[in-house]
Amino acid sequence: MSVMTDNRYVVIMAGGKGERFWPQSRQKKPKQLLPIVGDEPLLVQTVNRVRSVVCEANILVITNAENADEVAQLCPMLPAGNVVAEPVGRDTAAAVGLATVLVKMRNAQASFAVLPSDHVIHDKDRFCKVLQHAFEVAESTDALITIGIEPIFPSTGYGYIQRGAECMRLEGLPVYKVQRFVEKPNLETATKYVASGEYFWNAGMFIWRAEVVAKALEKYVPGLWKGLDAISEKLSGGAPMNEVLEEHYAGLEKISIDYALMEKADNVMTLPAVFDWDDVGAWPALVRHIPADGQGNVLRGKAIVYDGKDNIVIGTSDHLVSVMGLSNCIIVHTDDATMVCPRDRAQDIKSLVREVSSDPRFSDLV
Amino acid sequence: MSVMTDNRYVVIMAGGKGERFWPQSRQKKPKQLLPIVGDEPLLVQTVNRVRSVVCEANILVITNAENADEVAQLCPMLPAGNVVAEPVGRDTAAAVGLATVLVKMRNAQASFAVLPSDHVIHDKDRFCKVLQHAFEVAESTDALITIGIEPIFPSTGYGYIQRGAECMRLEGLPVYKVQRFVEKPNLETATKYVASGEYFWNAGMFIWRAEVVAKALEKYVPGLWKGLDAISEKLSGGAPMNEVLEEHYAGLEKISIDYALMEKADNVMTLPAVFDWDDVGAWPALVRHIPADGQGNVLRGKAIVYDGKDNIVIGTSDHLVSVMGLSNCIIVHTDDATMVCPRDRAQDIKSLVREVSSDPRFSDLV
Repeated sequence: MSVMTDNRYVVIMAGGKGERFWPQSRQKKPKQLLPIVGDEPLLVQTVNRVRSVVCEANILVITNAENADEVAQLCPMLPAGNVVAEPVGRDTAAAVGLATVLVKMRNAQASFAVLPSDHVIHDKDRFCKVLQHAFEVAESTDALITIGIEPIFPSTGYGYIQRGAECMRLEGLPVYKVQRFVEKPNLETATKYVASGEYFWNAGMFIWRAEVVAKALEKYVPGLWKGLDAISEKLSGGAPMNEVLEEHYAGLEKISIDYALMEKADNVMTLPAVFDWDDVGAWPALVRHIPADGQGNVLRGKAIVYDGKDNIVIGTSDHLVSVMGLSNCIIVHTDDATMVCPRDRAQDIKSLVREVSSDPRFSDLV
Repeated sequence: MSVMTDNRYVVIMAGGKGERFWPQSRQKKPKQLLPIVGDEPLLVQTVNRVRSVVCEANILVITNAENADEVAQLCPMLPAGNVVAEPVGRDTAAAVGLATVLVKMRNAQASFAVLPSDHVIHDKDRFCKVLQHAFEVAESTDALITIGIEPIFPSTGYGYIQRGAECMRLEGLPVYKVQRFVEKPNLETATKYVASGEYFWNAGMFIWRAEVVAKALEKYVPGLWKGLDAISEKLSGGAPMNEVLEEHYAGLEKISIDYALMEKADNVMTLPAVFDWDDVGAWPALVRHIPADGQGNVLRGKAIVYDGKDNIVIGTSDHLVSVMGLSNCIIVHTDDATMVCPRDRAQDIKSLVREVSSDPRFSDLV
């Protein structure tokens, strides 16, 4: 099944902050650079996952200036020039636009996938199969392709994709026309979406021909595209990447790819993800990946719970975290900081991080 | 006021385990060797507290074999021979008996105080005044003297002393005849005791002439005294302390000084403690000594609480402990172990320690 063509690229988006995994995650060590699930950093898992679909030379990573060195170190399999650092974050439309420029410069006939760097997907074979299919559809149409995740609960944390009619099948798997993209709904709306059976979660995985997405960007966000065009010209003229981005990137329009493009375009198709998927958004996600003990405690490293249940306790190989008489809590130890909170406050760790960073005694720990 | 006579000795009992302060306290580092309150280990504070009453040469510490080296290191002000190690714990009557033997050998006319090593007393001057008074009473009578602590709640964790008639006054402070010693009562009985105004807590502080306590031990626990007499003879004959104790100590009767002597003797007097006193039995005691923040959180080292109150959070100078959304909890970080529990489970830390020590992966952390 494995078809590797020089016309296919994968651009991995690795600019996120992942603050909710503090204190393991830091400004200099965001979630995607950590082995939150599995033994390798999520970014490395993502790179390795696509290596049977595209060759290493065609895998690019877009990250931020602060993490670029470590990304390069973690990904020695990639050519050094394939790690690109945004001098400043300008949201996803600019990052996708930059990816489009970079891929087009290498190969005007190319198609490419945009993939997040910090999701967990265990079933590599089925993932690659869907990715292959998506490339095939993109290459044989003028469509913008997205991967749709079957929703398993009415999440208010994701955007949704409403599917339209099935427009083709590949090896028994359907491809749908997309009726519309919608932003994160409230609970009532999300519940309706899930009940209808017509909606997928939008996981931010896109596949398209470079030429097609370039035209779409030019049409729907012409201001942004003009800025990207300037970058493209300078780079084609031989100017160094860092200098060009330093000069032009901060001036790009700051807008999400969903809002800029996906919600507006009418040539969008979606392939259902027939693989497992988890965006591991915060510590409680670990319970879906690490087997719990008889009391529902998820333990990692040296960790012990006495008379308590449903805790997530993360020690290290040389530090024991012990818990007595508490349930439904998260305790995470790292070398220089420990975090303790109830499981249902895991989404608020960002607030704690803000509190810690605002205290001059502790701000170096963020 | 300071009267120092060569006939006065202080014997500090430093053989306790203090497990409830785990993970700071360890088998090799019990509570009295830690600065639980204040900047110095509680034992060192105890030694320094009595130095204006007796000279260093007359201060002895009885500890256990495991801690003897560290006790000697922590107390360079004491002659090396004044740190005595029990080869095995035989309860308080044997320890007091050994103290009696050692003091009598040095000075048959001596009086001595037996003091715990792990209590917190801030008001050194008033403590020393009471101790001086107690020595004076002991030296002018044939009484066994004890210090009585005014009970501030119906504790079921202490023994009680029922006072009888006032038999004298020194500088305006009363001395009472003791009617009886009683062991730890149940709550109902403790409540009656406190309401009556006739009872003190027994803090294990005794003052007596060596000759008087020797006679009392001989009378009430003759078997124990016979064993101690054998030790005394060997030591007088010049045999080394370690060898003598190794040979004889384990054979001594195991019984508490309260049960063996204080509950039976009829020549007991008590001096009320007009100084502050706290036996800091477990982590929650810290709230009585460390000022809390506006939310009732007691913080030590690098520590921060966001949206929580009445926690006790102990970081270190190079490790932050952060807590969000929890109240009434205790979190203690040390280099190799962290402990998290609700405040009302602090007394059960012994059970957690037992659990940890029974796991071969963690048993070296106890």
